[in-house]
Amino acid sequence: MELSAPPRSPRTGARASEVRRHNLSALLGCVHLDGSASRSQLGAATGLNRSTVADLIHELAGRGLVVEDGMSSTSGRGRPSPIVHVRASGAVALAVELGVESVAAATIGLGGQVLQQRVELPIVKPSPRETARLVAELAALLGLAPADRGVVGVGVAVPGLTRRADGFVHLAPNLGWKNVDLGRLLAEALGMPAERVHVGNEADLGALGEHRRGAGRGCENLVFVSGEVGIGAGLIIGGRPMLGAAGYAGEAGHMLVNPDGRRCTCGASGCWETEAGEAALLRAAGVRGMRGVTAVNAVVDRVAAGDASAVAAVAEIGHWLGMGVGNLINLLNPEVVVLGGIFQPLFPFLRDPMLRAVRARSLDEVSDLVTVVPSALGTSAQLHGAAEMALAVLLADPSLR
Amino acid sequence: MELSAPPRSPRTGARASEVRRHNLSALLGCVHLDGSASRSQLGAATGLNRSTVADLIHELAGRGLVVEDGMSSTSGRGRPSPIVHVRASGAVALAVELGVESVAAATIGLGGQVLQQRVELPIVKPSPRETARLVAELAALLGLAPADRGVVGVGVAVPGLTRRADGFVHLAPNLGWKNVDLGRLLAEALGMPAERVHVGNEADLGALGEHRRGAGRGCENLVFVSGEVGIGAGLIIGGRPMLGAAGYAGEAGHMLVNPDGRRCTCGASGCWETEAGEAALLRAAGVRGMRGVTAVNAVVDRVAAGDASAVAAVAEIGHWLGMGVGNLINLLNPEVVVLGGIFQPLFPFLRDPMLRAVRARSLDEVSDLVTVVPSALGTSAQLHGAAEMALAVLLADPSLR
Repeated sequence: MELSAPPRSPRTGARASEVRRHNLSALLGCVHLDGSASRSQLGAATGLNRSTVADLIHELAGRGLVVEDGMSSTSGRGRPSPIVHVRASGAVALAVELGVESVAAATIGLGGQVLQQRVELPIVKPSPRETARLVAELAALLGLAPADRGVVGVGVAVPGLTRRADGFVHLAPNLGWKNVDLGRLLAEALGMPAERVHVGNEADLGALGEHRRGAGRGCENLVFVSGEVGIGAGLIIGGRPMLGAAGYAGEAGHMLVNPDGRRCTCGASGCWETEAGEAALLRAAGVRGMRGVTAVNAVVDRVAAGDASAVAAVAEIGHWLGMGVGNLINLLNPEVVVLGGIFQPLFPFLRDPMLRAVRARSLDEVSDLVTVVPSALGTSAQLHGAAEMALAVLLADPSLR
Repeated sequence: MELSAPPRSPRTGARASEVRRHNLSALLGCVHLDGSASRSQLGAATGLNRSTVADLIHELAGRGLVVEDGMSSTSGRGRPSPIVHVRASGAVALAVELGVESVAAATIGLGGQVLQQRVELPIVKPSPRETARLVAELAALLGLAPADRGVVGVGVAVPGLTRRADGFVHLAPNLGWKNVDLGRLLAEALGMPAERVHVGNEADLGALGEHRRGAGRGCENLVFVSGEVGIGAGLIIGGRPMLGAAGYAGEAGHMLVNPDGRRCTCGASGCWETEAGEAALLRAAGVRGMRGVTAVNAVVDRVAAGDASAVAAVAEIGHWLGMGVGNLINLLNPEVVVLGGIFQPLFPFLRDPMLRAVRARSLDEVSDLVTVVPSALGTSAQLHGAAEMALAVLLADPSLR
């Protein structure tokens, strides 16, 4: 068992005084990610001894982050061991997803527990300021008081290039945004300090959500493909989100898959999203005058009813989807590829042509080792990821509470 | 400044008893990667205090890994501080690169110092057993005695899918190998314990070499593109090598760039390596009856002399190279893309068409932030990476010595 975490940089020293903080974080991380566990299970999972675990759990309980109850004697040997649970309301995040047609939000606490279910407000390409106002409205609808001790902050999933450090949105083409200081606008609208407002790319947060709570639990290497108006990829590499130098990694939608393909909004042609995205699906299926969830659901209904032109359209999308997925598999050698957004309801119907294209594109040695699955969280993947992002600061240092 | 390294897994605890080992590693890592430094500079770099640094350096010196000399008073303030240097011969790796036409080797010590210069033996597609014998011959030519206290092990770069854990080569198409237990064969031929034999993919090790010693020093996110008979990519993400779930990441050579392209050895068509690899270059330039370094150099000479057909051939390769590089930039948002192998001597001539294709393919927001440069280490990139791989165990735990 790996006892001590390897350093991120080989040059950074650690001080004995930081070990306690690290260990508090490790224990809270265990129950947050893996669920309730006895003290002795936590000792085994972290490599910490019995008295250290007891002492640290006592501190976490005092900070209102965990509770203990009952007694377990799992192995039948030794003293019974109290069970440690996260206190979901001990740390709560407002999780928000900005879409092209709506803003959705939920409150999610420690352990990924949804405290107030998803609420969605319809919008059409709102301005950044309107968006901030809507998010504050959603917070009020969900009964969230930003000043409450339990509220750690807000996490917002944006379909665009975002900078984590300060919530700056460099570009969100499908919202029509460029260089928007969303972090600041949200902090003002919510009456919350800027450092508690976290903004991330929706595909990156979808990947995080599926990794922590969905189809990618327990996987160290995961690719999440988010099919919306555009296509984005979120990457978990070695158990960590992979964001790139500036946070812009995963722009897989503009990966070339077809030099003879259609013109893309990015200026190039034959991008993955022009061939396998929502617009391509609706065009191939002959759907006009509708878009978004309604339109995609209409195609799903026609395919399920055996409509030949819809079946052919979905097969074509599946083929191009597989070409891109095959590229990602060759390049990243993931354990799991999770297909989210529009690809989740379409999955049963596009699975076969998609897998044929994956097999044709990727090396057998690599594709034999990967599973391609639909999103387990559906429309909640990004919300769970946004909550994890907002909870991360406290999870890294529970003594902040 | 980041004082304590964030945990790789949020669930792993650290014990106070491991802090010393971690700090020894951090200090040795500093001088190994960044060169000689005064004790006070090392204290500043690691966040460790003066007496801890002195104590740890004393231990590293006692283990023969560093030496101290001179006195520096860099800032003019405070007491002068001794300068700490790595002892290159304190830990030496045999670094080996298996090519399709030759096996090359050098001995490289701490600090990346080349102790015995590169020696190369020509071969044509040797069997695994012949290869192991040749590596032992190279070790003898370089005067390396595997039993010497200073010799930490051997690192071998292989053009194929390799498993780091035990040096198993799953597939090396251009060598004609499949399922080869190269680690074991090398350990036998060298008379060395298997745990001191390290085998990695050549592009992964090229990336590591350029990251530690070449064009990617100081970059946290780097893509190394290795142009040989095939094309491979090596990825450094967040300062760490990104190997994928099974160690097979970076198979960028089989990324689709041209659905109308030529048939690839992998069974698919229009792969990056069929359009931008060595064979495509030689075909486009009308070179027959030659291959490898000699043939590529002949093309370089013709381009340098202004031969129109060679100029056009290199421009075509540059175009397809740029299409793939653009994909990688969109997907991974690196700070630097380093072009190695045949692309290094060709770089001045393919730069413009390559950059045009990159700009056409990648989002401005992402491509504005990246630099595409030729390899700084040339044919030594893989050897430096192989040495770093072999030295890693000792660097992670200097108390092993």
